[in-house]
Amino acid sequence: MLSKEFESRWEEYRAAVERQLDKSLSISNEPYAVVIEAMRYSTLGAGKRLRATLCLEFCRLSCGSFERALPFAAALEMVHAYSLIHDDLPCMDDDDLRRGKPSCHIRFGEANALLAGDALLTHAFAAALEGSAGVGYERAVQAALKIARCAGADGMIGGQVMDLAAEEHPELEDKLLHQLHQLKTGALIRASCEVGALVGGASEKDIRLSGDFAAGLGLAFQIVDDILDVTVDEKTLGKPSGSDQASGKTTYVTRFGIERARSMAQDSIRRAKAVIAQFPADVCFLTALCDMVLERDH
Amino acid sequence: MLSKEFESRWEEYRAAVERQLDKSLSISNEPYAVVIEAMRYSTLGAGKRLRATLCLEFCRLSCGSFERALPFAAALEMVHAYSLIHDDLPCMDDDDLRRGKPSCHIRFGEANALLAGDALLTHAFAAALEGSAGVGYERAVQAALKIARCAGADGMIGGQVMDLAAEEHPELEDKLLHQLHQLKTGALIRASCEVGALVGGASEKDIRLSGDFAAGLGLAFQIVDDILDVTVDEKTLGKPSGSDQASGKTTYVTRFGIERARSMAQDSIRRAKAVIAQFPADVCFLTALCDMVLERDH
Repeated sequence: MLSKEFESRWEEYRAAVERQLDKSLSISNEPYAVVIEAMRYSTLGAGKRLRATLCLEFCRLSCGSFERALPFAAALEMVHAYSLIHDDLPCMDDDDLRRGKPSCHIRFGEANALLAGDALLTHAFAAALEGSAGVGYERAVQAALKIARCAGADGMIGGQVMDLAAEEHPELEDKLLHQLHQLKTGALIRASCEVGALVGGASEKDIRLSGDFAAGLGLAFQIVDDILDVTVDEKTLGKPSGSDQASGKTTYVTRFGIERARSMAQDSIRRAKAVIAQFPADVCFLTALCDMVLERDH
Repeated sequence: MLSKEFESRWEEYRAAVERQLDKSLSISNEPYAVVIEAMRYSTLGAGKRLRATLCLEFCRLSCGSFERALPFAAALEMVHAYSLIHDDLPCMDDDDLRRGKPSCHIRFGEANALLAGDALLTHAFAAALEGSAGVGYERAVQAALKIARCAGADGMIGGQVMDLAAEEHPELEDKLLHQLHQLKTGALIRASCEVGALVGGASEKDIRLSGDFAAGLGLAFQIVDDILDVTVDEKTLGKPSGSDQASGKTTYVTRFGIERARSMAQDSIRRAKAVIAQFPADVCFLTALCDMVLERDH
């Protein structure tokens, strides 16, 4: 796929999910409007929208149109945004900077940031379920259930718990390091692909393929994240760089070194591409996305 | 309804929802098991289960059996439990004691408490949606959507935001005081009644009646809470008493005095009873529940 074509489809998805988020998180005049302002501050106009893009593309590959998955793509981005707000809180990573601007709790205070995160997580389910009519209730239930499971204690939150614990036990075994990231970053990326396929009406086999693709992509994404943390400056990254090292966390870089980590990321992308080649559709956008994940610089 | 009969049905509901919660939040051997332990610590074996009881009774009134609503009743209790964990955090009410034992963050640390709350909220939606098959997908979607809306920024969280802001502006107008509690406590009580009726297959008119009943009951419940905060000692209450006064919050008691607050609660219960008398079933359990809310001492 030509790079221009790839970028224009990504931009189409990004713009569509942005409109969906803007509509879904509508400005309020209620006395509690500050929490909606905080939700919008941390959700709108920033981020690459990787999760939404995967969801929309898998829907398009499955049924020919991406619009049907928009409520679910927006929900996935809300779950992602809430997790970043809570991750940045003083009792978690205590980060003052996110996507190049003050973190939610720096801008709105800790209590409002906590509640904005809670409200985004809650609203994600409302947003997804509001998209049921166009999808069919049974598939909508399955999709929302997948989001809940991937975002919950046996998914993303389990990974965050392991991440916290890892600060105290920096010598993480390979198996645990892998499980940590499979949960912390991988689970929601998997949900994004599977939900897109599910909502698009894909067969069980193809939904499984989308999940296997996501596993390879998610691992590579995380390894590249670890590499960027030590190789890129704060301004390009939009958040403090070197923070993994500073906190003494085990990462793919501290565990294997940059060179081996890079080659692990390449292997993982190779596996993802091999899996997705079996998907019964033209997957050139996804293979281009794989290359982008590997080559991104922020 | 005889008091003994009332208590035995309440106990039947309580035991059933307890089993459902225990099963749904199953013990884990995973490396992130601490968050599941924290979820169980803050959810199991405590509380009156008012929300579950309302949900189960409205389901029983609508279809003759309460079991169908159990996954939703458990979900409502999880949402309630998460809101208490986050409410107790240092950046919110900073309470060390809850239901007579250390708050979740005192027992498990702040980060794990934050994540346990997040995980309970997430798991609530998984638990509810897992109950879809017995209910029919369309009603299950409507029920989960109702929970999300009542728990979100335009519901419970909106109320919490107003509550925080009220500490800085203690002279709350009557209208705002009413809106605050309608959202903070009322919204989830309303969801409990409506979801029970919905899951039980009630007509739209009867679902509306259940919501109107909940509005009266919820207001009375909150006013009685405010009264208990100033009249009952910490040991009976299971949490610090006098905390509303200490924080300078406007409550129904500080605004109207104990006597007038008590008569407002009685009026509100009278309205709830008048509404529910129109429900096409034998509502003597609900009228007994109304009396209990008015007369409770903790």
